[in-house]
Amino acid sequence: MKIEAWSVEPAEFENLDPDWRYGDTHVPRLAGVFVALRAEDGTLGEGYAPVLGHLGRSQGELVREVESLAAACVGGDARQFSVNAVAARRSTGISGPALSALDMALHDLAARIAGIPVSLLLGGRHRERIPVVRIVPIKPPREMAAAAAALVERGYRAVKLKATGELDDDLARVGAVRAAIGEGPDIYVDPNQAYDVDGAIRFCRNAAELGVSRVEQPVPARDRDAMARVARELSELCVEADERLFTPADLVDVLERRAAHGVCLKLTRSGGIAPTLAMAGIAEGFGVKARMSTAFGGALVSLAAAEVAASLGALDGYAEVGEFDHFHDTCHHAPKLVEGSLLLGAEPGFGQRRKRAWSAPWRA
Amino acid sequence: MKIEAWSVEPAEFENLDPDWRYGDTHVPRLAGVFVALRAEDGTLGEGYAPVLGHLGRSQGELVREVESLAAACVGGDARQFSVNAVAARRSTGISGPALSALDMALHDLAARIAGIPVSLLLGGRHRERIPVVRIVPIKPPREMAAAAAALVERGYRAVKLKATGELDDDLARVGAVRAAIGEGPDIYVDPNQAYDVDGAIRFCRNAAELGVSRVEQPVPARDRDAMARVARELSELCVEADERLFTPADLVDVLERRAAHGVCLKLTRSGGIAPTLAMAGIAEGFGVKARMSTAFGGALVSLAAAEVAASLGALDGYAEVGEFDHFHDTCHHAPKLVEGSLLLGAEPGFGQRRKRAWSAPWRA
Repeated sequence: MKIEAWSVEPAEFENLDPDWRYGDTHVPRLAGVFVALRAEDGTLGEGYAPVLGHLGRSQGELVREVESLAAACVGGDARQFSVNAVAARRSTGISGPALSALDMALHDLAARIAGIPVSLLLGGRHRERIPVVRIVPIKPPREMAAAAAALVERGYRAVKLKATGELDDDLARVGAVRAAIGEGPDIYVDPNQAYDVDGAIRFCRNAAELGVSRVEQPVPARDRDAMARVARELSELCVEADERLFTPADLVDVLERRAAHGVCLKLTRSGGIAPTLAMAGIAEGFGVKARMSTAFGGALVSLAAAEVAASLGALDGYAEVGEFDHFHDTCHHAPKLVEGSLLLGAEPGFGQRRKRAWSAPWRA
Repeated sequence: MKIEAWSVEPAEFENLDPDWRYGDTHVPRLAGVFVALRAEDGTLGEGYAPVLGHLGRSQGELVREVESLAAACVGGDARQFSVNAVAARRSTGISGPALSALDMALHDLAARIAGIPVSLLLGGRHRERIPVVRIVPIKPPREMAAAAAALVERGYRAVKLKATGELDDDLARVGAVRAAIGEGPDIYVDPNQAYDVDGAIRFCRNAAELGVSRVEQPVPARDRDAMARVARELSELCVEADERLFTPADLVDVLERRAAHGVCLKLTRSGGIAPTLAMAGIAEGFGVKARMSTAFGGALVSLAAAEVAASLGALDGYAEVGEFDHFHDTCHHAPKLVEGSLLLGAEPGFGQRRKRAWSAPWRA
């Protein structure tokens, strides 16, 4: 069963919260790129990558990269989901989010040909429901508290607050959210590298007293020694490494420096499912927690991350596979969210359901 | 598709070379344990583990461990090859060679149900032929030279000489082999931990001058700092870590100490295919070479290691998947060896062909 054609379609999803912000970034809408691969029997596999500033590609650049990778797969055995991705990476020299989109499409295609969910392609599901943590974007404390309370009201048991690196403001955010949602739900905080070492330690200590269980990448990821100083000082909560974990070698370097208690896994950043699984194995080897972090985009990328999360024997904390909920996804129907968990179905591939047939032109 | 029954059969293979020795161990015959799992549709999956002194189980103990693990799989979804192994390990607390045998059977079963080779279950084949290095057991130099020459005559391009830790004798072995096989073929040496640090460095330097490209675990594996001193001193050849790499955490510790330039992957030692893949990912993250080391036993375990080797994007050196050649395997026909490579076929599972139907009793 050969791969006979490919198609690429840029997309833009409106953010249902037009004031959605993290760090210095405002996300009123989300650009992205879809890719589809078609096998000889007509089966389609789909992948997606968002355009995110920190990943360093414009939408046009991402489209061209995905096109090059997809073209390299034509003629390949559609069942060889991992070999095709490695071969395309080697022949084009392209990795990162474009490779992640292609790799997703290869997994979806192989699973659909076999008639099984991607998690089964990866060895099976350790869980059928993925407990979700939802992101609360940066706003004044009172608005974040209201947003968090609304999420908890809908059944979520964990929220992740975006933070700015201004200590008093961030603690006010955490305090307001804790007061609004009560003692039960988990609170994570993600300052997206905004603190320096001393500020991070001070923030984390105070946040821990408010029951924050994790803080993601509080200091710049380029300075792994700074992260190590933060991680060494803190036992009150889990300091997670996130930004700039592009490759297994990046993760090894972070963990050798003891620069994190936990690792954020992200398909888009690390080039797809296989490198993400390798990074989960590395975390296990170091005895460090691994969590499925943000799948940023619509239904497809959320379901992809959820299928991978289901297949991991050791998965820590809540997964960020519910962000599709605040985007107007023009391509796929929303997955099922019940009591704060994403429910996996029995459908093949990622289990995504399209709103309309694939319409972008095919190339062979 | 459920797993409905299991069966365990002890086995003993005669060594066609009754004087086969490594370290202090004489292997005139090889005890082992086969396990089979049966799915509802009658499909069988097979696994195997040898009884090896350094793995610390008698044949009786291994049989009982495999029985416990196999019984824990009954009722499981036969397609969930990875989930079933993790669940059986967790419920029994058993790992090591018994888990490896079970894990092989789970992979074979899932692949046979899907009608595909295990390498395809793992994402595809990066290669259809696995270049093989053959072990030359400990004998006087002249006999080892004759054995190596006979292997090269048969098309092998690499031999691995077992060594004793007696410097002059070992160098005489290497010298005699090099003289007999000429400059072309690779020579690896495996002293199985027999040297101390100074002796290992001296041996490796001299061996490198005779064109030895790898030396496996020259000093005791329990002393990882000793290995680190050896590895640090030597750039002439690749020092491989082998013994006692039971878990991903063991491998991380060895590599954090910079205690090896290369890693020997072994299904039997590390508890099966999934942990072996995790260890390959760890090696990649550390930028260290990973080689498929000895699959000790008959056709089944050799084919299993070869299928895994085929699926690894980064695979270094020659693989030890040809040792079935010197055992009288009472259960399976020999795989194809052509020009020193094991040829993978298109048959499902590990591609093994039984000499006789499975005859041990089934239990549910």
